[in-house]
Amino acid sequence: MKGVQFLVAFVLLALASKFVSASDPSPLQDFCVAINDTKDGVFVNGKFCKDPKLATAEDFFLPGLNIPGNTSNQVGSMVTPANVQQIPGLNTLGISLVRIDYAPYGGLNPPHTHPRATEILVVVEGTLSVGFVTSNTDNRLFTKVLYPGDVFVFPEGMIHFQFNIGSTNAVAFAALSSQNPGVITIANAVFGSDLAINPDVLAKAFQLDQNIVKQLQSRFWWDNN
Amino acid sequence: MKGVQFLVAFVLLALASKFVSASDPSPLQDFCVAINDTKDGVFVNGKFCKDPKLATAEDFFLPGLNIPGNTSNQVGSMVTPANVQQIPGLNTLGISLVRIDYAPYGGLNPPHTHPRATEILVVVEGTLSVGFVTSNTDNRLFTKVLYPGDVFVFPEGMIHFQFNIGSTNAVAFAALSSQNPGVITIANAVFGSDLAINPDVLAKAFQLDQNIVKQLQSRFWWDNN
Amino acid sequence: MKGVQFLVAFVLLALASKFVSASDPSPLQDFCVAINDTKDGVFVNGKFCKDPKLATAEDFFLPGLNIPGNTSNQVGSMVTPANVQQIPGLNTLGISLVRIDYAPYGGLNPPHTHPRATEILVVVEGTLSVGFVTSNTDNRLFTKVLYPGDVFVFPEGMIHFQFNIGSTNAVAFAALSSQNPGVITIANAVFGSDLAINPDVLAKAFQLDQNIVKQLQSRFWWDNN
Amino acid sequence: MKGVQFLVAFVLLALASKFVSASDPSPLQDFCVAINDTKDGVFVNGKFCKDPKLATAEDFFLPGLNIPGNTSNQVGSMVTPANVQQIPGLNTLGISLVRIDYAPYGGLNPPHTHPRATEILVVVEGTLSVGFVTSNTDNRLFTKVLYPGDVFVFPEGMIHFQFNIGSTNAVAFAALSSQNPGVITIANAVFGSDLAINPDVLAKAFQLDQNIVKQLQSRFWWDNN
Amino acid sequence: MKGVQFLVAFVLLALASKFVSASDPSPLQDFCVAINDTKDGVFVNGKFCKDPKLATAEDFFLPGLNIPGNTSNQVGSMVTPANVQQIPGLNTLGISLVRIDYAPYGGLNPPHTHPRATEILVVVEGTLSVGFVTSNTDNRLFTKVLYPGDVFVFPEGMIHFQFNIGSTNAVAFAALSSQNPGVITIANAVFGSDLAINPDVLAKAFQLDQNIVKQLQSRFWWDNN
Amino acid sequence: MKGVQFLVAFVLLALASKFVSASDPSPLQDFCVAINDTKDGVFVNGKFCKDPKLATAEDFFLPGLNIPGNTSNQVGSMVTPANVQQIPGLNTLGISLVRIDYAPYGGLNPPHTHPRATEILVVVEGTLSVGFVTSNTDNRLFTKVLYPGDVFVFPEGMIHFQFNIGSTNAVAFAALSSQNPGVITIANAVFGSDLAINPDVLAKAFQLDQNIVKQLQSRFWWDNN
Repeated sequence: MKGVQFLVAFVLLALASKFVSASDPSPLQDFCVAINDTKDGVFVNGKFCKDPKLATAEDFFLPGLNIPGNTSNQVGSMVTPANVQQIPGLNTLGISLVRIDYAPYGGLNPPHTHPRATEILVVVEGTLSVGFVTSNTDNRLFTKVLYPGDVFVFPEGMIHFQFNIGSTNAVAFAALSSQNPGVITIANAVFGSDLAINPDVLAKAFQLDQNIVKQLQSRFWWDNN
Repeated sequence: MKGVQFLVAFVLLALASKFVSASDPSPLQDFCVAINDTKDGVFVNGKFCKDPKLATAEDFFLPGLNIPGNTSNQVGSMVTPANVQQIPGLNTLGISLVRIDYAPYGGLNPPHTHPRATEILVVVEGTLSVGFVTSNTDNRLFTKVLYPGDVFVFPEGMIHFQFNIGSTNAVAFAALSSQNPGVITIANAVFGSDLAINPDVLAKAFQLDQNIVKQLQSRFWWDNN
Repeated sequence: MKGVQFLVAFVLLALASKFVSASDPSPLQDFCVAINDTKDGVFVNGKFCKDPKLATAEDFFLPGLNIPGNTSNQVGSMVTPANVQQIPGLNTLGISLVRIDYAPYGGLNPPHTHPRATEILVVVEGTLSVGFVTSNTDNRLFTKVLYPGDVFVFPEGMIHFQFNIGSTNAVAFAALSSQNPGVITIANAVFGSDLAINPDVLAKAFQLDQNIVKQLQSRFWWDNN
Repeated sequence: MKGVQFLVAFVLLALASKFVSASDPSPLQDFCVAINDTKDGVFVNGKFCKDPKLATAEDFFLPGLNIPGNTSNQVGSMVTPANVQQIPGLNTLGISLVRIDYAPYGGLNPPHTHPRATEILVVVEGTLSVGFVTSNTDNRLFTKVLYPGDVFVFPEGMIHFQFNIGSTNAVAFAALSSQNPGVITIANAVFGSDLAINPDVLAKAFQLDQNIVKQLQSRFWWDNN
Repeated sequence: MKGVQFLVAFVLLALASKFVSASDPSPLQDFCVAINDTKDGVFVNGKFCKDPKLATAEDFFLPGLNIPGNTSNQVGSMVTPANVQQIPGLNTLGISLVRIDYAPYGGLNPPHTHPRATEILVVVEGTLSVGFVTSNTDNRLFTKVLYPGDVFVFPEGMIHFQFNIGSTNAVAFAALSSQNPGVITIANAVFGSDLAINPDVLAKAFQLDQNIVKQLQSRFWWDNN
Repeated sequence: MKGVQFLVAFVLLALASKFVSASDPSPLQDFCVAINDTKDGVFVNGKFCKDPKLATAEDFFLPGLNIPGNTSNQVGSMVTPANVQQIPGLNTLGISLVRIDYAPYGGLNPPHTHPRATEILVVVEGTLSVGFVTSNTDNRLFTKVLYPGDVFVFPEGMIHFQFNIGSTNAVAFAALSSQNPGVITIANAVFGSDLAINPDVLAKAFQLDQNIVKQLQSRFWWDNN
């Protein structure tokens, strides 16, 4: 009987864990607080949500964006997220926030895209050189040096970066137009993908020697997100 | 001939000014920088935009969110916006930002809704008591006291407020899921509308004496936005 | 063994009841008939739906909008809904209907918003004074007296009301651009919320004496929806 | 000089008339009242709109839905619309209304689709047999007899009809989930198109004799909208 | 104990089969691979999806669109689909593909609509006469003869067809702006619905003799999709 | 007077040319045929459209996708587009097509993203190694070798490529879920942007020697679109 109870308990657990991760582009009720712990194999577009009657203020709350991120890493920056993974109440609501810390003298949030969001950034501390590049065939760089209080916009899907050109730490808050904006760090996705891309492809695309491509593919690519 | 040239120039100007104010929910090109000075009577849903070839980094930029707003007013708060009115590059991109300053001992961002946006707020300074109320028939209040680094979410369309319960200034940044979120300050819209609502309606709806209603309707209602 | 069977049956029931309440902004199949009886804690944005093969004409049907609503209440009006709660076939389809009855001499559908819908109303009987107020900073009142056959539009998110200024019953049908439009009766949400809003907030926001605020907060607020 | 002034005036007029007809799926401001008189060749998706400062309550208003439509025609029905063509304030708001009158003993709103809207109908008078057919490969008919106060839903894009099976006039109000839902009366589009479809196509598709097809194509097809 | 294990296994299976069929209009994560085998009664708008960690390249792949469809049927055409039913990775991504084969001398893809998609078609082989009809009240036919390499667009919801007017097989690829576009073959839905439409309705709507209607309703209507 | 007439004619022309380039995510009428020749500075999100009464079948038509693209270039591939720039009738309809030609032995459609579209590709001739990389932090490569008749999906915003690993030409048709999907060729945007990105940024991001970065930035980057 123990075994049976164990099995049944397992089923109940499986059930409980199954209903993880479900939401939507525009809310169809006041809110739809995400259930975040996915242990089983069923999902929906977005996230499943909990009984609205059981929602509390805690579901819409996250502390800690006053704490500087650790920038002692390869790129000298750290992104602290406040999206649907951290705040389940954001589910279906189409917005999120990050705090970004940059080390002095070259802390870099390296070129990346958000496949599902525009970003609007406000500098709180330091001096940032920022930019985005438009799509083909122009590939124009829009760039600007930002100081505290300055706001800049990175349109959805465009490759963009921020670079600390000052001698002090820099800090920014940035909002994104999705509860789950996604990040594609270009170098990481291209040279550090899990299963390497055929080096012939990258050598031809980036006009690089095959050996350099292979060397790049063997390196460690830090993800600051 | 002077008169003719003047007329023609006027037509050209009229043309130039006509094409003001046009945008859209999801972008259909990299960006669509708004033309903001509407002098003539033609509009579109959102805003007209300028030739993308003429767009510059300045179109995506706004300085000044480091400057405290003046909170010496009726409600003791001030909202400094960074939306499509201030940053034309935000047009069609579905996001915006505000800085909110609150006077010590009771600075209030009074109960209001954003008809077109969810809000996510991060406290930078001070202590805020915040809350939102759900729709009928529950009308539950979700409330929380926030300190620096705390983040809170106000779902789209819900009535919400922030109240400085500390003895110092408070400052927050808040992002909104629309480039033109709109604000409806409840008291202002109900008691301070341009053309007063029939006092019988408000007396019955708010269970107030007609005289109180009329008194309220004769007051000045400060808009902190 | 009985216990085991019981547990297993319970699991099956839990499963069956779990899948309640799921839908979406734009349909991805011909229809997605909602399953309405939520007994367990898992939801999606919108509603879960039943096997389309089991859908019947009854799922798209509701009788009874010929029956007058009971207007013997605090505000003298009653809203009879035909949305996704009553018609499961409306799930994902983005529209719903209500019948509104107004008592003679002042029956009031009090100032409210629909956070997720525009409303279009047609008067079938009686004389209604209706209006909506635009967002800040203008807060303009758009108002009109309506007679049978007259149609009026209340844009999404705007505060609006209907007031029977005639000496007979009034009846209207109104359609809303959502299968679950939501209603926020302003006075109820502000003064009748579950957990009262801090009276300091309301006194300051509404320029009312604290005692009046507390008195209002202690009253009963009828929800005519 | 007269000629010049005339030309310039003409340009100004052309300008004024050009900006007709522009709107959008979800509103980006409180409203965007359509300008309806298109005399020139420039349009946008939806409709152009007028200066919001010039909008009035009249823009959101339409009288006359109490007046029975004339059903003395081929199909014995008449649809009286209240969409963005009649109510410019509906522009961008995603909803509209119609009144439908049906002659006794067989007044028919013939099989049609709305390419951009779901329909929800409430019967005010009479007895209607209504139905819709699902898409391939099932093509199931969902059908129901409706009496006053009965509500029925026709999902977006599905072929549907209403048929007066009673001995009195029938009247219904129906709401549609678009400010410009469109109507495709099946028989009219197939057999009455402007430029006839190749009769070989229709003979094969409808399993009809070529002569019958040609006969049908030569008939008059009444549009009750 | 066997019985218990069987029951528990059944529960696990029920669970596994329950989560079939869920997706969405715009993706909220990189992808959401559909689970296609629905054996139980719970669905969502679109499809449920599997654990993204378990997704593989096979989920985004379909072979076989080089194989000609069998056109030996009533209409002389065959549509081979590549939508979310065949490629689970298409779930939430809003696009799909078909290969269409047409028999020589009159192979016909008969008049139909896609309730949820625009179609763009490219001819690979043969000569097609194609067309679509606009909505009321114009019902204009837009028609064109297409040769290999020619592209044509059929706007969402419009009735359209392709007809092989050449003496060889014809082949086309067509893309649709939905992962589940749906097809309504007009003749099949009108005359071949499951539960026949009242012949009085069709006789009046199509100006056909009742006997012809009944004869049509008794026929077999081939679905080439 | 000649000069005046000339000026006025110029104004009329300016007017005519002004209304270029306007559309929208979901159509609000049957179609909205784009006006493509932008000579003046006013735009909307999407494209302006012409009077629907003047639309013809030609507006929905494009010949020439049977003609192989010239692959004698740096990357050995060529994309021939059929989007709203070539087919004005695609405006607002959310779909487009391309033909892609690949030279034998290594013709490459280099790593790129479509910021506004998912892509579904069918191989017509040859052997392609294709792949896409997911977003952080996994950056998984989904890859597959494709033969004629094989279909593969590249989800919106993901970096992807196709590589001809065969000894013959390869040809594919691909559909995209936008009338204006956009292309960002990664190497071109990063190393070939107009105004070079600060080499410090790229050296750090790509773990490359500054000299290599500068060398890359001085090269010519072919755009195969």
